[in-house]
Amino acid sequence: MDSPVWCAPISRAVVFGGTHGNEMAGVCLAKHWMKNPSEIQRQTFTTECCIANPLAVERCVRYIDQDLNRCFSMEILRSPAAPSDSYELKRARDIFHKYGSGDSAVDFALDLHNTTANMGVTYLLCRNNDLFSVHLVNYLQSKSGDLPLPFHCSLTDVPEKDLVYLHRIAKRSLCLEIGPQPHGVIRADILSAMREIVNHVLDFIDLFNQGKEFPGFEMDNYTFFSRVDFPRDSKGEVEAVIHSELQDKDFAPLKPGDPIFKTLDGKDILYEGEKILYPMFINEAAYYEKKVAFVLTEKVRCTFPALKLMH
Amino acid sequence: MDSPVWCAPISRAVVFGGTHGNEMAGVCLAKHWMKNPSEIQRQTFTTECCIANPLAVERCVRYIDQDLNRCFSMEILRSPAAPSDSYELKRARDIFHKYGSGDSAVDFALDLHNTTANMGVTYLLCRNNDLFSVHLVNYLQSKSGDLPLPFHCSLTDVPEKDLVYLHRIAKRSLCLEIGPQPHGVIRADILSAMREIVNHVLDFIDLFNQGKEFPGFEMDNYTFFSRVDFPRDSKGEVEAVIHSELQDKDFAPLKPGDPIFKTLDGKDILYEGEKILYPMFINEAAYYEKKVAFVLTEKVRCTFPALKLMH
Repeated sequence: MDSPVWCAPISRAVVFGGTHGNEMAGVCLAKHWMKNPSEIQRQTFTTECCIANPLAVERCVRYIDQDLNRCFSMEILRSPAAPSDSYELKRARDIFHKYGSGDSAVDFALDLHNTTANMGVTYLLCRNNDLFSVHLVNYLQSKSGDLPLPFHCSLTDVPEKDLVYLHRIAKRSLCLEIGPQPHGVIRADILSAMREIVNHVLDFIDLFNQGKEFPGFEMDNYTFFSRVDFPRDSKGEVEAVIHSELQDKDFAPLKPGDPIFKTLDGKDILYEGEKILYPMFINEAAYYEKKVAFVLTEKVRCTFPALKLMH
Repeated sequence: MDSPVWCAPISRAVVFGGTHGNEMAGVCLAKHWMKNPSEIQRQTFTTECCIANPLAVERCVRYIDQDLNRCFSMEILRSPAAPSDSYELKRARDIFHKYGSGDSAVDFALDLHNTTANMGVTYLLCRNNDLFSVHLVNYLQSKSGDLPLPFHCSLTDVPEKDLVYLHRIAKRSLCLEIGPQPHGVIRADILSAMREIVNHVLDFIDLFNQGKEFPGFEMDNYTFFSRVDFPRDSKGEVEAVIHSELQDKDFAPLKPGDPIFKTLDGKDILYEGEKILYPMFINEAAYYEKKVAFVLTEKVRCTFPALKLMH
């Protein structure tokens, strides 16, 4: 096992809801905590709460002009404002200015999402070197045993140029996806799971700040492999739907020859890859326009060193 | 049992998809049948297929300016066009002109919908005197035994002034609601159930046109009782969510004292009605803005006379 990694304490954290305005568990909790912040306060650090895309929340849509959660490249964030900038570009710069840059940058960002896919509780991390957040996920998995949802960790080392997600504004961050939940709907079970997990996140930070050491460990991760689009006709119309044998099977092994789509003429389309992969975001409503029917990942066993507080 | 009701044959039928542009099973089937109409043709009548709200379908939203399925009052349909008319008002008049008025009016209209509520297959009828469609529903229930979804009939005698739904353009009509399915998503199981039912609808019309007699019968109906909104604060924000014990329990008996909402502070809100009712449209995404958390119905056993073809 490698030698421990030392991390500075967290003094300022932020929880984002409504990065997508119709993902309602995060929207509902963020609104509640902005009015009633006591639940998200801990002894050793401050936690703020922010509705990332307030206009999209007001209209209960994913976004106004473009997907806010694809606007956080450093190129965009550092470019000068222009009159033609979309609403989301302006919001991205405002959020970066308030939470992501300079002396007052937050030490940790948590971004709350829902998906129509049957992904249970999925923790998305985009930097392999964010050992703090990997330990956080390991802690969450140990605490999530009572939840009625399966949980998974998707850890991918996204190259700097492809880092376009809101939670990248902090060096330590986590994006939480919980589903299945239709967009525009608040389900009590999903809301309650998300609320419990956010509280565990804040407890972990508090424990870490108090000097608790977290030993090294092994964990399965699902790393990005590829995106698969729906079969489409020459006009771009979907010609086949997610096969009933694939629907709701997020993170189950997909084997060469397994059916993945069914055409409206009743033909099965099979997975022609060469090895077993693990699909996620199967039939996510918002991904039809992104030309993504599901995302394929590889399951990788990883070893992580211990985490200690740097005083 | 009452004496039989005699109905004229059906010579022209229309199937609408995309009345709400993000209810994808109907959208997907209507697009398919407009390109490949053979599946919906029968010997004794013609069937057309129509995307009711094409711009909403293109944008994958429920509507552009207002809910098309609330635009079909005779007052609206007969009022003169005005430059300030919404997109949906124009569409409603176009649809009425093409399918609902004059010598070429259709004899039967079928409107295909999806819901995020766990309503299985629900047949919505709005006129008690539409005996043809009541017999159609009885036939569909006899044919739907193999479907993996429960089925229900909601038959309400809507007063003429409140008849604002698309399918009212024909004197004989049916609105089909299938769920649960997130808006913007095509689920293979829901698509397949809807397709099978549409084929049964057309088979029934064909049998009827050929002179088959349908004997009188008894059936449970769920008739409209009231709409229940979410508890809201002074700004109109939802303050409580559908209780986990009510979620997904469409058409199950709701008894006085049963929990219906849970506040974000953890308090249960109970059903204070005086008698057992049957909720539907529980947590339908599109009804948050209509201030409807669920719709209450009464379960009524009804007797219907036989149906015969009028030559």
